[in-house]
Amino acid sequence: MTTAVSIREVAPRDGLQNEEPIPTDDKVRLIDALSRTGVRRIEAVSFVHPKAIPQMADADEVWARAWHNPGIRYSALIPNTRGAERAIRAGFREIEVVVSAGDTHNRKNLNRSTEESLDDIAALIPLVHEAGATLEVIVATSFGCPFEGDIDPKRVAGIVDRVRADGADRVAFGDTTGMATPRRVRDLLSEVRPELLHFHNTRGTGLANVLTALEFGVTEFDASVGGIGGCPYAPGASGNIATEELVHMLEDMGISTGIDLDALIGVAAMAEGLLGRALPSGVLRAGPRTRLV
Amino acid sequence: MTTAVSIREVAPRDGLQNEEPIPTDDKVRLIDALSRTGVRRIEAVSFVHPKAIPQMADADEVWARAWHNPGIRYSALIPNTRGAERAIRAGFREIEVVVSAGDTHNRKNLNRSTEESLDDIAALIPLVHEAGATLEVIVATSFGCPFEGDIDPKRVAGIVDRVRADGADRVAFGDTTGMATPRRVRDLLSEVRPELLHFHNTRGTGLANVLTALEFGVTEFDASVGGIGGCPYAPGASGNIATEELVHMLEDMGISTGIDLDALIGVAAMAEGLLGRALPSGVLRAGPRTRLV
Repeated sequence: MTTAVSIREVAPRDGLQNEEPIPTDDKVRLIDALSRTGVRRIEAVSFVHPKAIPQMADADEVWARAWHNPGIRYSALIPNTRGAERAIRAGFREIEVVVSAGDTHNRKNLNRSTEESLDDIAALIPLVHEAGATLEVIVATSFGCPFEGDIDPKRVAGIVDRVRADGADRVAFGDTTGMATPRRVRDLLSEVRPELLHFHNTRGTGLANVLTALEFGVTEFDASVGGIGGCPYAPGASGNIATEELVHMLEDMGISTGIDLDALIGVAAMAEGLLGRALPSGVLRAGPRTRLV
Repeated sequence: MTTAVSIREVAPRDGLQNEEPIPTDDKVRLIDALSRTGVRRIEAVSFVHPKAIPQMADADEVWARAWHNPGIRYSALIPNTRGAERAIRAGFREIEVVVSAGDTHNRKNLNRSTEESLDDIAALIPLVHEAGATLEVIVATSFGCPFEGDIDPKRVAGIVDRVRADGADRVAFGDTTGMATPRRVRDLLSEVRPELLHFHNTRGTGLANVLTALEFGVTEFDASVGGIGGCPYAPGASGNIATEELVHMLEDMGISTGIDLDALIGVAAMAEGLLGRALPSGVLRAGPRTRLV
C-alpha cells in the first residue's frame, strides 16, 4: 500500500459553498490558517455567478487578500469560460470544472445535458492550456445520482475517456450526495481510475470508502476541515469527510500526509467558531486517539 | 468474504447506560421495537448496582415487561456473581462480563487489577454454566486505553488465552473509547481473534474498522441503533457505531444481516424522540442511498 497520500483541503470553497455565508475576513482567516497546517493543496474559491452561489460572491477579494503560500497549490472551481477567465486573471494555474455523470443532476445543476457539458469542457480545455493552467474535470454523482439512483460505472468510464481524449489534465470522482459505499467504490474503480477521489461521509462510510480506494492505488483525496459543508439534498446531514479524521486514520496507518494534525484540529475549532455551529468531526470532538485522559 | 453477519443490538443496555436516564416504559418500547426489526440478538439490560449505574436500576422490571421474541437471543451484562445470579433468576441464558485489557482502566472501572478480575471471572464461569447459561468475556480497551495509551496485542492475546482456558464460551473485544483504527484492528486481529467485535465511531473510523475486521473473517459485531451511547471520556462525542449505518453498508456489499433497514431507521427516529437529542447517525439523517429525491 502507498506510503503517502496527497490531501486537497476543500473547506474554503466546497465547504463554505454549502454553509450560510460568512464575512470575507473570516474566509481569508480560514484559508490562511489552513495554509499553516502543512497541507499542500487548497481549493480556495470558485468563480461563479453571485446569484447562483452568493457564498462565493467575494471570490476575487478573498483570493487577493489570502496568503499565497509558495509551498501550496491553490485551485479554483469554475462553471464556464467566463469563470475560467476570471480564475486565470486572478492568477490560478489549477482550475476545476464539474460535470455530472447523472444527466438529471447535470440538467438541474448546469441547465444542460451531460453531453452538452462535455462539449463545453472540450471547448474550454484549449483556453485554459493557452493561459498556462491545467484543468481538472470533477465527475459529480459518480457513485450514484440523487435523482436517478445507481450510475453505471461504464457511463462514468465513458465520460473519463471523453474528457481525457479532449485534453483534460486530471479527473476526479465526486460522491456528490454521499452515495458511495465500499462496494460502489470497488465497482467503479474496477472499471476506471481517477487521479483524485472526493468522498462524503453522509452515510457514515467516508473513511471506509477511502480505505477501499487505497487498495486500488488511489493516493489523492479531497477533504474539508471540520467536515464543513452539509449535504444539499438532506438538511442537517453531513457532507464532506473531515480532513482531521482522514489525516488521523492515514497517519496511524503509517501513510504520510505532510499535515500537522494538532494544527489542523486547531483550524477545525476555529472554523466551528466562524460558522457558529457544531461541526461533524469526531477527531475535533474527542481529539486524536493518542490524547489520553 | 463472508455472506452473512450477525449483529448484536446494544442500544437498550450499552447505549442507554451512557445517556441520561429514561423511563422504564420507554426502555420497554425500545426493546420491543428492536425485536420487530429482524435483528436476532439484543443486549437487553445489565444487572449492576443502581448506585453505580442508575440508568439500569429498573433492569428487572424492564426485562419482565419486554417482549421476549422467541427468534431473538437476548443477553445481559453483569459485573459480578451477584449480578450473574440476578440475570439467571430473570431467565437470561446469555451473560456477559467485562474485563479491561488496560490495568488502569480496570482499576477505575472495577476497583481491582486486570489479574484480579480474571480470577473473579474464573470463579464465575462454573456458576454460570451450572445454571445452563453461557458467559461471554468482553475485553474492554482492547484497541487502546484512555489512561495508558496503546495496549500490546500480546497482552490482549494473553487475556483471551486465560479466559478460554478457564472455560469462557465466547470472547469479544471492546473499543471502549474509540481508539480502534484500521491499523490497530489489523495489528490485534493478526495476533488473536475474538468471536465478536464492539467498535465505536468516536473518531470516524467505525465502519472502516468493520471493513478491516471482515477481511480477518470476523462475522459478529455490536452496534447501537441511532448510535445511542456517547463516549464517557469525551463529552459530546459519538460512541457506538449506529446499527443502521452498519446494516446499510453490509447489505449494500451483499452481506446479509437479516435486519429490515427501513424498520431499523424507524426505531432510530423513535429513539431520537425518547432521548430528546439528535442522534449521531447519517443513515437516520439522510436515509439509505437508495432513497432518491
